[in-house]
Amino acid sequence: MNFLQARIRDEGVVKPGNVLKVDSFLNHQMDMALMDQIGAEFHRRFAHKPITKVLTIEASGIAIACAVARCFGVPVVCAKKSRSINIDGEVYTAQIESESHKDSKVVVAKKFITGDDRVLIVDDFLAGGYTLQALISIVEEADATVEGLGIVIEKCFQEGGRRMRNLGYHLESLAMVQSMDAATGEVVFVEE
Amino acid sequence: MNFLQARIRDEGVVKPGNVLKVDSFLNHQMDMALMDQIGAEFHRRFAHKPITKVLTIEASGIAIACAVARCFGVPVVCAKKSRSINIDGEVYTAQIESESHKDSKVVVAKKFITGDDRVLIVDDFLAGGYTLQALISIVEEADATVEGLGIVIEKCFQEGGRRMRNLGYHLESLAMVQSMDAATGEVVFVEE
Repeated sequence: MNFLQARIRDEGVVKPGNVLKVDSFLNHQMDMALMDQIGAEFHRRFAHKPITKVLTIEASGIAIACAVARCFGVPVVCAKKSRSINIDGEVYTAQIESESHKDSKVVVAKKFITGDDRVLIVDDFLAGGYTLQALISIVEEADATVEGLGIVIEKCFQEGGRRMRNLGYHLESLAMVQSMDAATGEVVFVEE
Repeated sequence: MNFLQARIRDEGVVKPGNVLKVDSFLNHQMDMALMDQIGAEFHRRFAHKPITKVLTIEASGIAIACAVARCFGVPVVCAKKSRSINIDGEVYTAQIESESHKDSKVVVAKKFITGDDRVLIVDDFLAGGYTLQALISIVEEADATVEGLGIVIEKCFQEGGRRMRNLGYHLESLAMVQSMDAATGEVVFVEE
């Protein structure tokens, strides 16, 4: 059990509908020592890749992306959700194709991802993979390279992670949740 | 001229309507070395305060809050905007009282700010001060102490900063913009 799995076991709260609340250390309140550990761990896992940008999406990916980007010494690019567009000039846009995000678009200014970029995409959760797919399509539209996908918590009982691996992406998830039980509060992780 | 003013002069873009775009290093793309400098500078300016939490609001305050909180060794609490409420349990809410944010609420789970907390509130911009006022009211509703307000860019030609200082808050702004000219692109800073 790694540092993140232990923290989830100690402080995560399982809610009905396979919801895992990690509000006390990852989302609403953020433990900066944990963020630094997360950044260092992703840096270790992708150390052989020539990353030039870390791409994430507002809002809950930002703290994680910052922690990772500091380790690589590269900038963060934070994709905007369409409702908060305040971006001049040429943009890449991608639709998030999930039911729950209907009409949600992801937007990145073209000047911040170019064909030379080698991009590490990071986010807090991976479930259906629709947000990740939108971020990937923006990187590919820019003719940049997706060097890897770094996810803090993957819900392995949903299909997003499997789809990304099948597509050949290098996906690293720090906590791979196999199942959760809202009645007992138990979280079972995939054995690594 | 400090490091931030120099960066604004070099890369900031003035748009009509007193809009200052700092997309290339602060908002949309984020320079992590600059964030670390910002964190260190706020730490220097509030070093004598017994800060226990750094409070900000999604999304563009998060990277700044993380940089500051790392220096103090305390957690970040990230207030949610009402449209993204996904918070269990008891919450503090405050209305943002500006015309442009009509019906916008700020939400913080009660468990993350308590009466013992000594809070440094940080954000990227201060103009009218309505968002800052909502964050302050949440801290005060929690019977916690507002130890300071840390702003990256203050538009001194709007009334928010003056109002905060008149109310007795310790406000530190790293770049105090006196005026901007969209025609020439010039940004004039208040002499410190």
